[in-house]
Amino acid sequence: MLYSFTNDYSEGCHPNILQRLTETNLTQQAGYGNDAFTLESVAAIKQLCQRPEVDVHLVAGGTLANLIVLGAFLKTYESVIAAETGHINQHEAGAIEATGHKIETVATPDGKLRPEAIRPLINKFPEYHTVKPRIVYISNSTEIGTIYTKRELEELSEFCRQNNLLLYMDGARMAMALTAQGNDLTLADIAALTDIFYLGATKCGGLIGEAIVLANVSLQKDFKYYIKQRGALMAKGRLFGMQFAELLRDNLMFELAGHANAMAQRMASQLQRLGYSFLTQSQTNQIFPILPDALITELSKKYGFFVWRKMPEGTSAIRLITSWATPQEQVDQFLQEVTDLSERLK
Amino acid sequence: MLYSFTNDYSEGCHPNILQRLTETNLTQQAGYGNDAFTLESVAAIKQLCQRPEVDVHLVAGGTLANLIVLGAFLKTYESVIAAETGHINQHEAGAIEATGHKIETVATPDGKLRPEAIRPLINKFPEYHTVKPRIVYISNSTEIGTIYTKRELEELSEFCRQNNLLLYMDGARMAMALTAQGNDLTLADIAALTDIFYLGATKCGGLIGEAIVLANVSLQKDFKYYIKQRGALMAKGRLFGMQFAELLRDNLMFELAGHANAMAQRMASQLQRLGYSFLTQSQTNQIFPILPDALITELSKKYGFFVWRKMPEGTSAIRLITSWATPQEQVDQFLQEVTDLSERLK
Amino acid sequence: MLYSFTNDYSEGCHPNILQRLTETNLTQQAGYGNDAFTLESVAAIKQLCQRPEVDVHLVAGGTLANLIVLGAFLKTYESVIAAETGHINQHEAGAIEATGHKIETVATPDGKLRPEAIRPLINKFPEYHTVKPRIVYISNSTEIGTIYTKRELEELSEFCRQNNLLLYMDGARMAMALTAQGNDLTLADIAALTDIFYLGATKCGGLIGEAIVLANVSLQKDFKYYIKQRGALMAKGRLFGMQFAELLRDNLMFELAGHANAMAQRMASQLQRLGYSFLTQSQTNQIFPILPDALITELSKKYGFFVWRKMPEGTSAIRLITSWATPQEQVDQFLQEVTDLSERLK
Amino acid sequence: MLYSFTNDYSEGCHPNILQRLTETNLTQQAGYGNDAFTLESVAAIKQLCQRPEVDVHLVAGGTLANLIVLGAFLKTYESVIAAETGHINQHEAGAIEATGHKIETVATPDGKLRPEAIRPLINKFPEYHTVKPRIVYISNSTEIGTIYTKRELEELSEFCRQNNLLLYMDGARMAMALTAQGNDLTLADIAALTDIFYLGATKCGGLIGEAIVLANVSLQKDFKYYIKQRGALMAKGRLFGMQFAELLRDNLMFELAGHANAMAQRMASQLQRLGYSFLTQSQTNQIFPILPDALITELSKKYGFFVWRKMPEGTSAIRLITSWATPQEQVDQFLQEVTDLSERLK
Repeated sequence: MLYSFTNDYSEGCHPNILQRLTETNLTQQAGYGNDAFTLESVAAIKQLCQRPEVDVHLVAGGTLANLIVLGAFLKTYESVIAAETGHINQHEAGAIEATGHKIETVATPDGKLRPEAIRPLINKFPEYHTVKPRIVYISNSTEIGTIYTKRELEELSEFCRQNNLLLYMDGARMAMALTAQGNDLTLADIAALTDIFYLGATKCGGLIGEAIVLANVSLQKDFKYYIKQRGALMAKGRLFGMQFAELLRDNLMFELAGHANAMAQRMASQLQRLGYSFLTQSQTNQIFPILPDALITELSKKYGFFVWRKMPEGTSAIRLITSWATPQEQVDQFLQEVTDLSERLK
Repeated sequence: MLYSFTNDYSEGCHPNILQRLTETNLTQQAGYGNDAFTLESVAAIKQLCQRPEVDVHLVAGGTLANLIVLGAFLKTYESVIAAETGHINQHEAGAIEATGHKIETVATPDGKLRPEAIRPLINKFPEYHTVKPRIVYISNSTEIGTIYTKRELEELSEFCRQNNLLLYMDGARMAMALTAQGNDLTLADIAALTDIFYLGATKCGGLIGEAIVLANVSLQKDFKYYIKQRGALMAKGRLFGMQFAELLRDNLMFELAGHANAMAQRMASQLQRLGYSFLTQSQTNQIFPILPDALITELSKKYGFFVWRKMPEGTSAIRLITSWATPQEQVDQFLQEVTDLSERLK
Repeated sequence: MLYSFTNDYSEGCHPNILQRLTETNLTQQAGYGNDAFTLESVAAIKQLCQRPEVDVHLVAGGTLANLIVLGAFLKTYESVIAAETGHINQHEAGAIEATGHKIETVATPDGKLRPEAIRPLINKFPEYHTVKPRIVYISNSTEIGTIYTKRELEELSEFCRQNNLLLYMDGARMAMALTAQGNDLTLADIAALTDIFYLGATKCGGLIGEAIVLANVSLQKDFKYYIKQRGALMAKGRLFGMQFAELLRDNLMFELAGHANAMAQRMASQLQRLGYSFLTQSQTNQIFPILPDALITELSKKYGFFVWRKMPEGTSAIRLITSWATPQEQVDQFLQEVTDLSERLK
Repeated sequence: MLYSFTNDYSEGCHPNILQRLTETNLTQQAGYGNDAFTLESVAAIKQLCQRPEVDVHLVAGGTLANLIVLGAFLKTYESVIAAETGHINQHEAGAIEATGHKIETVATPDGKLRPEAIRPLINKFPEYHTVKPRIVYISNSTEIGTIYTKRELEELSEFCRQNNLLLYMDGARMAMALTAQGNDLTLADIAALTDIFYLGATKCGGLIGEAIVLANVSLQKDFKYYIKQRGALMAKGRLFGMQFAELLRDNLMFELAGHANAMAQRMASQLQRLGYSFLTQSQTNQIFPILPDALITELSKKYGFFVWRKMPEGTSAIRLITSWATPQEQVDQFLQEVTDLSERLK
């Protein structure tokens, strides 16, 4: 295989992380997230949030972050509302239900939740025979590559506060969202408009680690118990601390995400020029072009990618993902291949 | 502080791991444990077990391993039997109960379980009003530094098989157990005598990662679902794979563990020579000497360690832990300090 | 209020039950379901099932039955498939999710599940990132009054067996289903075609109690532990035993259910004659006529019923339920009222 | 068998309950605990508590009450403290752990908890690696027949309030406790000194039903969701309502409990006169005399009882339980038998 566009976690991490891990390897550090590198990364996140009062906790992965947060802040009879395409609903093997909670889903064409779609789920009759929604879960960027605008997030935030709902943002690809074309949100906005979010490193230049940010001060007490109880409190927290300490130095993470976005959008432009349409209007590093099956068959001999969904008239949508590490040459070579094949298979 | 003997996870990892992570950083690898390094480490573990049919899964930490395993193999009404000192009972913030299961505990002076201590917990009357034991949980080395002999493990294994109990060994410090003075067990023995165990890297030269080994073939089906559902399936599994790939090359892990043991036992010998006694007869890298409180106060000005328990006549037991990275000079300097202080405070 | 058609649990129970409870009140009986009346009712159920090997357990209510059964037979990563209208999905306050399991729902116009609707939920890609379906939950009669034909149940049963799915039937209103016009199923058919079902007494002439029937012999071991663990094993099981002992004597339960059906269908015929249509094609004791809002307002001054859903052009669907105890005079008086009001409000 | 002293739930219920059930059988009543009889019983309980602000909910059984209450008021990382002999620890098949919570146990000779025994369990080190106690569970009368004095309950209550612990009393046999010799507590005291308790009917003259009383106002919101979610909200709540409506009229329940106590204490006096000792100093309706095994063998040919524990020198402790329905003639006949056998077997 020449190159894989299957996902954005095929490579390791930005070299700075490995270099500093190596340099500091033998320093003795406190365990369980009390090390100097975690403190450094917490400080960096607080600064980006422009809110010194937020609480920051680093855990290994996104599903772990989701199940810790939702398991912590839902009473047993409370539910979480999510888009049908939401990662917690589709790709976490029932992790949230395993904490005892129902996910109530909303069908949405672009993977984004809006107040009008949520309203029918609250004040359901009759009381105490149904679950009671308490958290609204959104992803930014979404699972299909779209992003929230500031206006959209403000409206959703306002709606949640009026309806006693907590707003939780899954930021596995937050860095991509915040560097996408059309984005007008900052991390400070997100800290102001949500109650909880997590900022992902794994898919944005790191090797491992997601930073859970408790922006709502009333949620912060005793949170470390939840982390420990789910097996997510790591003895050598220095490893997680180092990811964010390095990725947030001089905005490195956002540069890397910008590159990932640029590579995917470069693909999108050329594919559009070739006349292909797309399943979703992605602004970030994962795009879903609809290609003829014959073309897909040829491409898959040289390139790795995921066939997402059968479409009408002998076409399918495929998913192409780029990462911080995707070389432009690989993208261009791939596009050349598509161009040639499109010509040949006409 | 001159040096910390507080735990065996104060330092990073063996340099080989960081070096190879760096060298292979940009190779594209499959995600979720299907990378080349994980495959390499799985092969190495199978070979050490001398059982090609075992199933191996790498996860981030020990509590995570415990809650995945116990949550997977217990029916809702089944319990796990553990020593009162067992990590799952004392130091996991209710992680096992959070999966819905009772831990039935046995008081044991040396942290080890024996058939006669377990027998009263099975066949309890009346049926279906009590939980039903299904798994026996042991640690090797134990939480207080002791180890199982082959004879002891054989007896326990036999008892479990006769009583339809699964035997699960927590091996957070398995490498220390297998290289301790007095040990006569091999990893192959353990794979033959237990149904499930995990082999820890975090405390034995790695940065992160524990290898769950399903020795009992009947338990292997669909295990990856459990890992995913608990949030433990990592996108960049290469990180975990690399730990074991490097640590198991040329028995490095066991050399490192042997060094940790040697450093602790060097301390123990000298402390004994100075006339001090010990709370437990540890053969591994954590020792529990009983020292005068005045001496402890002085020592704690220069050294990090944990005061474990108040003892009679103005003494306390402290816990001293050494690691793969503990330099002998630090140990000797510490012992000199104790010797001098013992003289001075007489 | 003249009379309530709000539900089928407004009255007590058939007098035979109270009479025999009174007569046998001071006999000493074994506890926890080992009393003579429970044994009598178990024998009666086995005979109706024409399967002596089924296992029968009596519990207090339907939600309890559902959470015990689904909590017992699903591994942590397995899901249950249900119609969107299914009781477990809509009206149990997240009871099933509280046992740790996802309900995967299927939209269906008549509340019934068919193989073609279930198929897309099995063999989802990618493995171990999604839950794995294991049980198919159906209700007979359904939550909207419809019933399964023998042909439909056979097809579903066959499909489940081919796909390693257990079939579970919620029979809160099983007696109504089996006595409805158009029904061609017997309890023996149900015992042959499902793996588990429950037969309800609460809504079919009893005061309390549902009988869980484990038709699949491989599911029977240790089931009483699950009942006890969910708090459903009652000291004075004689109370539950008596319900079924009396209701199954001389087919009393089915006579009572037949009466409930007849009363609702009598209503349906007259309402149809008056020109009203229905939300669902119910054959049982709950009907959903669509009436003008003005008529509903007037009716609700004298009668109890539930306004189910707003409909177009100033109409709404209401739910009318009859029970074993509904007198025909009340039905006729109600129909007269509707007839008069319909005339007057024209 | 002549008579069974095995438990206090061998008979049905006080005839008043069956009579009024019969008289009111066909009245239409609201479902789910909104019926007239439940309202009547709630009013009666509030009056006994002398606290109109308490919240009362009726459920089917004691294990159900315990798992609903503990599941409702513990955060996932919080534990409940109980005596080792506590019903939740010994006889509920892991029901509490199934809600995700650890039971921390205290060994206590008389089944009662005192502040000094609880203190070591709070403020455990290190934080967030262990569970955090939040509820103290006690039973009155205890599982071994003893009762709390007002002084003891005041001290425990005070200790709990000082340490941010909720105090929960299991009152399966509350009526026996409050009518025992030596008792100086009233239900009003209990409502003032605990946060939550339940008052049992099943073992005190009823057929089914326990009344959960939320004395602490801050715990009352949304409690009905928890009841529904655990499958404990019954359609025909009238059945539960009737138990308490009748049993609390003119203090009937306490008269019945007084009779049960008197019968057991009559046994105890005569057994003591015969020179036998007792395992516990019970003041209520269950006693644990220590008898020669030969005597036990003979007795068990005519009487039902439970052999509790092997004791030294060929003796065993047996458990004898009397109920509201135990006739004095049966007690006297039994005592005559013991007297004769004691003579004969000398």
